Amino acid sequence: MARTEYLAKIATRLRIHSLRMTTAAGSGHPTTCLSAADIAACLFFREMRWNTGNPHDPANDEFVLSKGHAAPLLWSVYAEAGILPFERLLDLRKITSELEGHPTPRMPWVRAATGSLGQGLSVGAGMALAQRLDKSPARTFVLLGDGECAEGQVWEAAAAASNWKLLNLVAVVDVNGLGQSDPTMHQHDLAALKRKFAAFGWDAITVDGHKIDKLLAAFREIGKKGRPTVVLAKTLKGKGVSFIEDRNGWHGKPLKADELARALEEIGCLPDIDAKRFVRKPKPFRMKRAAATLDFPRTAYTEKTATRLAYGNALLSLGKVNASVVAVDGDVKNSTYADKFFEVFPGRAFQSFIAEQNMIGVGMGLAAKGYIPFMATFAAFLTRAHDQVRMAAYSLSNIKICGSHVGVSIGEDGPSQMGLEDLAMFRPIPGCVVLYPIDAVSSEACVAAAAAHKGMCYIRTSRPATPLLYPAGEAFPVGGSKVLRKGEKDAVTVVAAGITVHEALKACDVLKKEGLGLRVVDAYSVAPLDGAGILREVAETGGRAVVVEDHYAAGGLGEAVAEALAGKAALTHLCIRELPRSGKPDELLERFGISAAHIVQAVRELAGR
Amino acid sequence: MARTEYLAKIATRLRIHSLRMTTAAGSGHPTTCLSAADIAACLFFREMRWNTGNPHDPANDEFVLSKGHAAPLLWSVYAEAGILPFERLLDLRKITSELEGHPTPRMPWVRAATGSLGQGLSVGAGMALAQRLDKSPARTFVLLGDGECAEGQVWEAAAAASNWKLLNLVAVVDVNGLGQSDPTMHQHDLAALKRKFAAFGWDAITVDGHKIDKLLAAFREIGKKGRPTVVLAKTLKGKGVSFIEDRNGWHGKPLKADELARALEEIGCLPDIDAKRFVRKPKPFRMKRAAATLDFPRTAYTEKTATRLAYGNALLSLGKVNASVVAVDGDVKNSTYADKFFEVFPGRAFQSFIAEQNMIGVGMGLAAKGYIPFMATFAAFLTRAHDQVRMAAYSLSNIKICGSHVGVSIGEDGPSQMGLEDLAMFRPIPGCVVLYPIDAVSSEACVAAAAAHKGMCYIRTSRPATPLLYPAGEAFPVGGSKVLRKGEKDAVTVVAAGITVHEALKACDVLKKEGLGLRVVDAYSVAPLDGAGILREVAETGGRAVVVEDHYAAGGLGEAVAEALAGKAALTHLCIRELPRSGKPDELLERFGISAAHIVQAVRELAGR
Repeated sequence: MARTEYLAKIATRLRIHSLRMTTAAGSGHPTTCLSAADIAACLFFREMRWNTGNPHDPANDEFVLSKGHAAPLLWSVYAEAGILPFERLLDLRKITSELEGHPTPRMPWVRAATGSLGQGLSVGAGMALAQRLDKSPARTFVLLGDGECAEGQVWEAAAAASNWKLLNLVAVVDVNGLGQSDPTMHQHDLAALKRKFAAFGWDAITVDGHKIDKLLAAFREIGKKGRPTVVLAKTLKGKGVSFIEDRNGWHGKPLKADELARALEEIGCLPDIDAKRFVRKPKPFRMKRAAATLDFPRTAYTEKTATRLAYGNALLSLGKVNASVVAVDGDVKNSTYADKFFEVFPGRAFQSFIAEQNMIGVGMGLAAKGYIPFMATFAAFLTRAHDQVRMAAYSLSNIKICGSHVGVSIGEDGPSQMGLEDLAMFRPIPGCVVLYPIDAVSSEACVAAAAAHKGMCYIRTSRPATPLLYPAGEAFPVGGSKVLRKGEKDAVTVVAAGITVHEALKACDVLKKEGLGLRVVDAYSVAPLDGAGILREVAETGGRAVVVEDHYAAGGLGEAVAEALAGKAALTHLCIRELPRSGKPDELLERFGISAAHIVQAVRELAGR
Repeated sequence: MARTEYLAKIATRLRIHSLRMTTAAGSGHPTTCLSAADIAACLFFREMRWNTGNPHDPANDEFVLSKGHAAPLLWSVYAEAGILPFERLLDLRKITSELEGHPTPRMPWVRAATGSLGQGLSVGAGMALAQRLDKSPARTFVLLGDGECAEGQVWEAAAAASNWKLLNLVAVVDVNGLGQSDPTMHQHDLAALKRKFAAFGWDAITVDGHKIDKLLAAFREIGKKGRPTVVLAKTLKGKGVSFIEDRNGWHGKPLKADELARALEEIGCLPDIDAKRFVRKPKPFRMKRAAATLDFPRTAYTEKTATRLAYGNALLSLGKVNASVVAVDGDVKNSTYADKFFEVFPGRAFQSFIAEQNMIGVGMGLAAKGYIPFMATFAAFLTRAHDQVRMAAYSLSNIKICGSHVGVSIGEDGPSQMGLEDLAMFRPIPGCVVLYPIDAVSSEACVAAAAAHKGMCYIRTSRPATPLLYPAGEAFPVGGSKVLRKGEKDAVTVVAAGITVHEALKACDVLKKEGLGLRVVDAYSVAPLDGAGILREVAETGGRAVVVEDHYAAGGLGEAVAEALAGKAALTHLCIRELPRSGKPDELLERFGISAAHIVQAVRELAGR
């Protein structure tokens, strides 16, 4: 059978599955599956090389469905490839099925959850980087919609991929010209999209996305121009079914039973073909990646050191013992001190420039291929990547993120540079560990804990140099806390983290002179919080607690402790409650109510003095 | 004096001020001020028309310093223009000064806080839209750095501005080729930047950014090609001081005292010129904007209605009574129901396509010019604009945001589409009001409350149709709560909001049969929370409370209530504690522990039954 013939038959099968599945589910996006069906057939059953028996075969060409709402098409592909029984397709979107409404790794072939548009190209760039690091001949394919090309992240990724010369990265844009509620900005003006990708350094090829032979010809051009390749495929949403084809208003709507019957009548019966025998096996490739430890020698500190500097030292030390550790920067590595790693390991360090969304997405791609990526920027600017962090959680991504320059303690740069909402951003992320060191020793230990933890971790570092509080080698396990000051007759427990621990210790010294004992807890593991440990200390101090944090009132350490102590303690919460401003760090701690003096005052009030 | 001569003298003065200020402050970014000094002189003292006596004169050309770290340059401009006494410049970054490290509206000429890079062009696009709506001849100028052009939002804004044909929007890029930690991606390759802007539909002009006559000639071309104009100015970071000029490693570093002395010696003495007499007054323009009410007639509902649908109805009704109300969409208006407004008021409705960062930025620009913008998308996708929302707070921006499709109650679409962290995102935002309606009546009332509130508001709407609970016309003031069920012997108070209120009412009916009274509080105002009111109800039910919310555990209603009740009540918190998934809404409420049955169970346990 001619290649174009069998691929056309497979495409028809994918269309029929997608229509049936969404009608059975009563929801979903059939029309966006129909526009991309010919592309998918050509990719998975001709252009790509993959081992259907093993989603983790390093020789596999990788695939990211950036337009995640076409999930039924992807599930249909996996059924056609023999990975899923066909009957399971009709379980789409059921609570019992791994075939969710948008791709998640509950289906093991999904390397990154998608469904928030515009993220896939960054993930693909990260996977392509990993393949290059592995010296693999495999490539990464990303299928995008034209609508999502309005997302800035697509252009962050496009610029980075071209800058990194990722010839093994291929984007295919299903240009069906229709968004959810309106025609897309450029509709079927492929030349407009071509100009954009070309300007961003890509080889952009336009093609009729429903002509199998033209698609195959386009794919033969991949990488020939010495640039990443994008195939811009002109398609029709709903292609193949006359009454939904190229019509606005059919986004995200399954056909009703009678409409499905009409549609299937138009398309004809399911072509009789065994698609899986057309899947091309990968070229033989054995990856050489040395087994490596995560246990790195710690720096011996003797003087005041910023936790961000210790982060940089630890990352470098970790990189020396483990070649899977990689780093991505957003052009602030001289502030986060990730530059130490960049200088020593330029081959494993990637500059994403000022593009935080892409930085996290690239990290997700690297992690999906087994690397352990560390990304750092100012904590405030991580808000730029909140959606990417959210999707990384749904991707079960083993990424490590460091946010530096937290709180008003950064001083003169002012509010725009102060991370004051990062704990509220990371604490809700399912499974995310949040660590907040207070000195150089704990900072290095937090890097070690983050590296050892399987899953997303966030490390919060501070700008100012802070005194050493812990002996070299002290461990800081995830979920723990430390009691720094303790006496038998302590009147109040202060729960602090980071910079405010130092304020709490000063307050302790002041109150001691008044005969008032203060217990000081370092809640370095903000998530999971050592609720039981904190409750125990607070109970011993008469159920009186002060929480003090360099963070806004909502969503941070204070509320975490409030929930842990609910009903069991009186609580005073010191935190930033108004718009901050420029000023000297100490002035700002004082002005915004989280200095030692404020702690002293709060403790006195709580203790009835 | 020749124009080029006086502008060069002004530029020299701006350089001297910027150097002195940052040295006096001991921190700041002098080199980035020096690269842009000639541009600033040409803009503010020749090309722009503005009334230095009134920052709110609608005839003013507007200016946004997207590269916010050049704040000292901007403050120097205002001093030169006679707006600030020169001696105040030396207060830069002091806690007592409005001249912060990055621009904030503490200085009234700042229309949008900047300092998180890549945001200014969206804000400028919004201001330019406002000027066009006002039929003003004025223009908006945005000064960017080349480093921040790596941010995707710049390209979202560029695409939107060209799509909206904003001929009154001018971008100037200070291409100094050096980022913070590395040379920028394109360094001094102006052709690369020109290709990108041209591909995005702009007239891109390249120029030597230190040649006054060339800059003036470039500005004379503005708008002539029928597209938005970008002037790409090749500059040297640190221009004018030999030992810092065009050198990497000088980002964000002030000169030491001796270095300053050497620098000033090189530059020469402060040129003697009264710059303010060169400011060009605006063309006469009187804005006609009708005074308007915010009080709109409410829809009469008779059956189950989704809160998102009521949001759409209310926005339309509000738009009918107030011409300052505008809307921006991210191509989901048929899901958020903002489409009702778009259909009736196409002139005041702006499609930003799938580009949430730009959507919020454009809203900030519209708000800065006195419009009341409503932006809506899925709550999950608002995480994409977290940084923009953060900066909107520092801009004191009067924007109204609606996040639809919250929680697991959306059902089959799965985790990527579920807003489960939006409360944790908006609650910490300083001054942001967070409203969460439970039926159509309260949804319309929340729109009214948001419109009437001066400042940022977030409205959380749900996907499913929900029964009517409130009588038409009921008011929902900011900071309030409602008691929906109350008996004298209630054993427990359930605090709920949105979809879970309906579950709580079902639980109440079940428990009534067991002789267990349940008080049900609708905490529709999540921020500010009616802590006192909730505490009063909980105290009346023996200090026993259950909080139930369709949101992750951290940062939402549960922790807000925990903090409000700290030490005064036993609390059970029902919320989403693991990775959600696709399924039917009711199945998911049950599976993830926030259904009526789970509330019943929690109440029984708390009441000791």
